[in-house]
Amino acid sequence: MLAEIITIGDELLIGQTIDTNSAWIGEQLSLLGISVHRITSITDNESHIISALNQASNRVQLIIITGGLGPTKDDLTKQTLCKYFNTELELNTAILNQLEKRYKAFNVSFSKVNQDQALLPKACSILPNTRGSASGMWFEKNEVIYISLPGVPYEMKGILTDEGFPKLKAHFTTPNVIHKTIRTIGVPESQLAELLIDWENSLKQYELKLAYLPSPGFVRLRLSGIAKDQKLEKIIISKIEELKALIGDYIYGFEKETIEMVVGNLLTQKQKTLCTAESCTGGNIGKLITSISGSSTYFNGGIISYSNAVKINTLNVNQQDIKDFGAVSQQVVEQMAKNARKILHSDYAISTSGIAGPTGGTKEKPIGSVWIAIASQNEVKSKFYTLPYNNRERNISVASSYALNFLKKEFLD
Amino acid sequence: MLAEIITIGDELLIGQTIDTNSAWIGEQLSLLGISVHRITSITDNESHIISALNQASNRVQLIIITGGLGPTKDDLTKQTLCKYFNTELELNTAILNQLEKRYKAFNVSFSKVNQDQALLPKACSILPNTRGSASGMWFEKNEVIYISLPGVPYEMKGILTDEGFPKLKAHFTTPNVIHKTIRTIGVPESQLAELLIDWENSLKQYELKLAYLPSPGFVRLRLSGIAKDQKLEKIIISKIEELKALIGDYIYGFEKETIEMVVGNLLTQKQKTLCTAESCTGGNIGKLITSISGSSTYFNGGIISYSNAVKINTLNVNQQDIKDFGAVSQQVVEQMAKNARKILHSDYAISTSGIAGPTGGTKEKPIGSVWIAIASQNEVKSKFYTLPYNNRERNISVASSYALNFLKKEFLD
Repeated sequence: MLAEIITIGDELLIGQTIDTNSAWIGEQLSLLGISVHRITSITDNESHIISALNQASNRVQLIIITGGLGPTKDDLTKQTLCKYFNTELELNTAILNQLEKRYKAFNVSFSKVNQDQALLPKACSILPNTRGSASGMWFEKNEVIYISLPGVPYEMKGILTDEGFPKLKAHFTTPNVIHKTIRTIGVPESQLAELLIDWENSLKQYELKLAYLPSPGFVRLRLSGIAKDQKLEKIIISKIEELKALIGDYIYGFEKETIEMVVGNLLTQKQKTLCTAESCTGGNIGKLITSISGSSTYFNGGIISYSNAVKINTLNVNQQDIKDFGAVSQQVVEQMAKNARKILHSDYAISTSGIAGPTGGTKEKPIGSVWIAIASQNEVKSKFYTLPYNNRERNISVASSYALNFLKKEFLD
Repeated sequence: MLAEIITIGDELLIGQTIDTNSAWIGEQLSLLGISVHRITSITDNESHIISALNQASNRVQLIIITGGLGPTKDDLTKQTLCKYFNTELELNTAILNQLEKRYKAFNVSFSKVNQDQALLPKACSILPNTRGSASGMWFEKNEVIYISLPGVPYEMKGILTDEGFPKLKAHFTTPNVIHKTIRTIGVPESQLAELLIDWENSLKQYELKLAYLPSPGFVRLRLSGIAKDQKLEKIIISKIEELKALIGDYIYGFEKETIEMVVGNLLTQKQKTLCTAESCTGGNIGKLITSISGSSTYFNGGIISYSNAVKINTLNVNQQDIKDFGAVSQQVVEQMAKNARKILHSDYAISTSGIAGPTGGTKEKPIGSVWIAIASQNEVKSKFYTLPYNNRERNISVASSYALNFLKKEFLD
């Protein structure tokens, strides 16, 4: 079972937008046991679209198209699909009513341009879009399935998840592929690979595949196999138990769990509250924690003490200590955590102080230097990290994740 | 002058790696006046590579290939290129010597696998790689130029910048393409399109193209044209002036400017300082502001008052007002801003309080309801937004951007 992905938009070809849709779709299809044979990005132009569709339809049985469905003049995909499938646009009153309702609810005028989003090809089944105005479309021609989707990632993902993938599963018999993801933090891919040489070799006899999926600060390990019977699930579970014995120290979660989810769940279980005192991470730890719905039950709030004045006046850090040891120091970061915990009446406080870059590094404290402290009622623990990045965004993001993991390992596990 | 980009690697097709190379190459080529006609991602397999090269060579005069040049067995591109160009690998002693020197300098043993990186096709001109071991290669066949590059972005960019682009400029006379991007906030694409119908029609006589590039809360407008003489630049400038008259209220910046950059620049110019008091945005505004290097000159810090207790105890919001009007209310959000400004000794304070979802919505205050206030020394201004998303991440992100834009428009412009 082979698929191709076609992404449409000038912005992709002139590099104004990075095509993240293809990677997401590719990952999801491979989880369904469907191989992606080719990804093609083209401009929103009739002849380009038609030639790309013609070529792909000679190679594969499934073509997923994103982009070109906006309400404006530069979006030509819908008209082109009508031509390709020898059909015409017709007003879909059900979609029209839904759109009208949504615009009314948000008090936005329902203009002609918006109404035109309910003009849809006769020949397609509609995949409703509950997140935006451009519907998904499912076509069949000469035993090839075509799914056309809006280019906005949030809408595209929503339509495929809610409508497209279930329909594909019903349509094709795909192999029963089992995937299990094990999530590690704070260990480089190369080090993991060395620790796992023997374990990795032991997977072959079960035809299990292992993928290393690194992202800054994290490596996900994905185990995949095709289940011919009930055994494989059990084998995978026992392999994961072996993994825990080998690298359990680095494992923080499984499947789709993020470190902020895991910390949130542990705080909820233990009925403990958390607050933050962020310097170099500038609010990012708060942002991560509050990205979880329901975080208000354990997260009280935080103080972003970006300037020394806020550290001194609001967090009551000793001014002389900042002078003597610098803002990026054990003395300062421990006071930040201890005092934030009291001021914000929480069980735990996380604090950070570091040099995110690209400027501000020194020989003693190069870019990527970060002090992290956690205060509880009885103690304060702190740790110094030297992150290997010369990149502000990456240092902030990894420092934030490491801070949450430090809380987890030292106080919640 | 047309080009295609072919990126090679299984990791692209299964979504393990997002193809950022194509976007970068596309942007650089379009700046050189070379249009990218198509981007293709394929697996590292001889027949796939050869068919992709055959197809592309019938459409364009320049093909840039990345990936598949690693030293390991699964990288087949070099052998495949030899087949395609009817040539063979030969040992390039100059490259061999350079590689040997580099390995010695890093104290790494110069193994057979590494030495093989000096085996290069006879028929190509070599584009030296000073950042890694895989050389770039320049081929010519039937008036088509082929450039093959390693997939590591840092090496690929280095070779093109140092060697590939200068060689291309010497080889082709390229048209002078001008792109200008205008950035809007707070207006849906469809509404913009209606406001711009006449203006958009007026672009045709100059052969200017317009693209709408939406993302949550924002729409970028991109004007592109081929300059045959000095006039086009002036025409585009006058068209942008017309645009300012039509939709100036929604324009916050140009080219690569983000709202946090624009606000940061204005605060720096005016030598004013900022702080935050975030409830529903949970630290995200702080995170956006501090994503800019140098933000410590204008950003003092913030209080993330997620719980009512922090609003009352740390931000001194009147407890009775929270009871009477709710935490998501004008009364509360204005006190948050006023008090944060004083506590954090800043010229301006931004505050937010809202319902990010997916739970917590009511009939009066549905999900997406957000109060935003800005306090200055003399006044407090506040505004109520109903964001049209049923998505937590999006509500937080758009509320944060709108808060920064509210500060800009009411206090900094």
